[in-house]
Amino acid sequence: MMMEDMVAYCNQYGFIFQGSEIYGGLANTWDYGPLGTRLKNNIKDAWRYFFIQSRDSSFELDSDILMNPTVWKASGHLDSFSDPLLDCKECKTRHRADNLIGDFDEEAKADGMTTEEMIQYIRTNNVPCPKCGKSNFTDIRQFNLMFATERGVTQNSTNTIYLRPENAQGEYVNFLNVQRTMRAKLPFGIGQIGKAFRNEITPGNFTFRTIEFEQMEYQTFCKKGTDEELYAFFKDYGIKFFNLLGLPSENLRFHDHEKLAHYAKAACDIEYLFPFGWGEINGTHNRTDFDLSRHCEFSGKRLDYIDLLTNEKYIPYIIESTYGVDRIVLAVLFEALQEEELESGDTRIVLKISPALAPIKLNVLPVMKKKHGEKALEIYNNVKKHFMATYDDAGNIGRRYRRGDAIGTPYAISIDDDTINDGIVTLRERDSMKQIRIKTEELVDYLNDKVKLPVV
Amino acid sequence: MMMEDMVAYCNQYGFIFQGSEIYGGLANTWDYGPLGTRLKNNIKDAWRYFFIQSRDSSFELDSDILMNPTVWKASGHLDSFSDPLLDCKECKTRHRADNLIGDFDEEAKADGMTTEEMIQYIRTNNVPCPKCGKSNFTDIRQFNLMFATERGVTQNSTNTIYLRPENAQGEYVNFLNVQRTMRAKLPFGIGQIGKAFRNEITPGNFTFRTIEFEQMEYQTFCKKGTDEELYAFFKDYGIKFFNLLGLPSENLRFHDHEKLAHYAKAACDIEYLFPFGWGEINGTHNRTDFDLSRHCEFSGKRLDYIDLLTNEKYIPYIIESTYGVDRIVLAVLFEALQEEELESGDTRIVLKISPALAPIKLNVLPVMKKKHGEKALEIYNNVKKHFMATYDDAGNIGRRYRRGDAIGTPYAISIDDDTINDGIVTLRERDSMKQIRIKTEELVDYLNDKVKLPVV
Repeated sequence: MMMEDMVAYCNQYGFIFQGSEIYGGLANTWDYGPLGTRLKNNIKDAWRYFFIQSRDSSFELDSDILMNPTVWKASGHLDSFSDPLLDCKECKTRHRADNLIGDFDEEAKADGMTTEEMIQYIRTNNVPCPKCGKSNFTDIRQFNLMFATERGVTQNSTNTIYLRPENAQGEYVNFLNVQRTMRAKLPFGIGQIGKAFRNEITPGNFTFRTIEFEQMEYQTFCKKGTDEELYAFFKDYGIKFFNLLGLPSENLRFHDHEKLAHYAKAACDIEYLFPFGWGEINGTHNRTDFDLSRHCEFSGKRLDYIDLLTNEKYIPYIIESTYGVDRIVLAVLFEALQEEELESGDTRIVLKISPALAPIKLNVLPVMKKKHGEKALEIYNNVKKHFMATYDDAGNIGRRYRRGDAIGTPYAISIDDDTINDGIVTLRERDSMKQIRIKTEELVDYLNDKVKLPVV
Repeated sequence: MMMEDMVAYCNQYGFIFQGSEIYGGLANTWDYGPLGTRLKNNIKDAWRYFFIQSRDSSFELDSDILMNPTVWKASGHLDSFSDPLLDCKECKTRHRADNLIGDFDEEAKADGMTTEEMIQYIRTNNVPCPKCGKSNFTDIRQFNLMFATERGVTQNSTNTIYLRPENAQGEYVNFLNVQRTMRAKLPFGIGQIGKAFRNEITPGNFTFRTIEFEQMEYQTFCKKGTDEELYAFFKDYGIKFFNLLGLPSENLRFHDHEKLAHYAKAACDIEYLFPFGWGEINGTHNRTDFDLSRHCEFSGKRLDYIDLLTNEKYIPYIIESTYGVDRIVLAVLFEALQEEELESGDTRIVLKISPALAPIKLNVLPVMKKKHGEKALEIYNNVKKHFMATYDDAGNIGRRYRRGDAIGTPYAISIDDDTINDGIVTLRERDSMKQIRIKTEELVDYLNDKVKLPVV
């Protein structure tokens, strides 16, 4: 399964469309169609369950994308959140210096180089422009990745604000609000699902790298000294979460960072094996007390945690574990989508996705539309109150099974004469294609257990 | 219950905090704390159930906030989505002309006036500046409400893009993508939950008017001639939805628009009676074929629906019904929050919210921490797998009941000697404060039925 096949699949079946497609798109934006939206929602719900609901002292936050601009001064993003870009003097195209080097020699470890080391490497090795092949570049300049906009209504009274490049600062500036209102003791966690924005020029690998993306972030506030243990815990917890979503450990690996962000003491990604190579789908960072200390400094407010038992007063350390929703959707689709050869010699497209993540749980099919359609609609109208279901009466039954298989619907029922006479339907399971006979009135309870997220 | 009490309540209990509070805020932004986030999620889930899952031919979309800028040229927002602003020449404050007139004389119907009529009214009537009391204003100028930002990385290669001021255009430009992939026949609906942004200068009434807000939008694509019936249907459906959320009809009313937006043939709000007066929480609009026709014109693409039975080919009409999530959260809180006098003469704060919307479903309370804490934690660790629960062992039991009442937790169980000996817990209901005895192993099933959204 190559990337272009996945793009075509997502477009054909209603998972993901090009953003603003009728206008020729807007580079690196994508819109989720009905099935993609449902899949994304199910992944977010799984995260809420695994990170918030089932854990103690774990709280969800929903802070605004637009924040007071001093937040980004304090966090370091205004000064340091930039890409090293250079232009080809020959063909006028623009490139990221670290990517140029990495594509030229993947052993070169460009992410550990300074700006000076990068430009020296490029010149010494005559690294070519990927567009025109020449090696004649400008110096490297750092370009900030934050989108800026003007708040207020006239030129005279505006102030520049930014679209957040990460959710995390929302959790940090609300750290004491959450601690106070939830009467939380360290260690406790604040998670947030929401959009972030980065003005990237790098091409995207479909939804892997976009200018607008959704993060599921989890920040654990803890006492210095307990940070390394928690850091290790969340690396492992990430693997468990991905296993729950159907990503097997053999397609996951840890990648420790050599070059650390300005705020981090340690950083490790979990990578998934995409067709284009290993790609980050989670990052766990030991951000120490960097962010909260900076917010103290820039806001003039104290952000101390007070331990009521020991009377100690200190700024907590933070372990961040952040998940890219869009990348996880993509990984789950790559993992699950298969072209399968059947005993009959036919092939089928089947999305072997976990039933809990499947966009549609049940496909309701009258064997013959005229004879069984009314009964099938009656059953459909009942089951759809309990979970996402579809009704399909177009084409022969085999073709309708295939349509459900292709979008990952784990169960289908067919309605025939026996249903009308005895209330018995035939229930077919997607992966095994095995069929059982079940009473209509037992259907909802039987399936409810199977299509819900497993209780952990 | 006045607005300032609600702001204080939301801050005290962890529903809503001022955005970027430690930096003195950012005007008209608010962050949802753990309880507010959960309440908002529950309202969004209720909308998904009521508008998407339980309806036929109803599809959810999740399109990007950033769109190709021509979308906003086509939709009319670049040219017409503006506020009429003027400055007081005396004290240099800025005002919306229609609000100045409305505050001066609420019978004046400023929303039906042209720019010229407004300035004439202000001068003829010597409408005073609310800040300094003088009546000496500049002319009215129209200021666009969209936030603009620059895509790309240098001054030479940027293009201006906008934060969407409404979600709707995402549904419109994807109309044929959804129709094709879902094999949908008219009428069908596309709904979307997501953030939108407006550069408002008007003060906000807490979360009622903000620069960043979340919408739940529902667009029904239909054949011209069926539009008026659907328009009427969605007005009523809105009332039903609000009733489901616990907003009674006596605090809701329809408000038909006199001045219509540039795209609308008819428009009606549902308003809720807030402490500051009637305020819009839903808008239903007959947008005709305006938007799709404009997108045809500007994109050069055909956006026709083809009726396969009759071979007719036409651009559908659109009925939009849009819900402000933040305003609904606020309405639900105002409706449910009460100070109640008890038989004992004491008072309690109680949030009489529907159990399905309650942030926390069950509060688990050991009667005595030392004796019953271990058993209580064991029960808590089981129930929290099934729904949001809290464990509270701090303070006397009456105080702990009050804490749960104040945040709307519909049920509490207390664990005592009988629990340890016979597995029986005491279950207390929030509103009636009545208690029953129930076996531990029956608890989850008993409550699951009560805390879930009613099946409709």
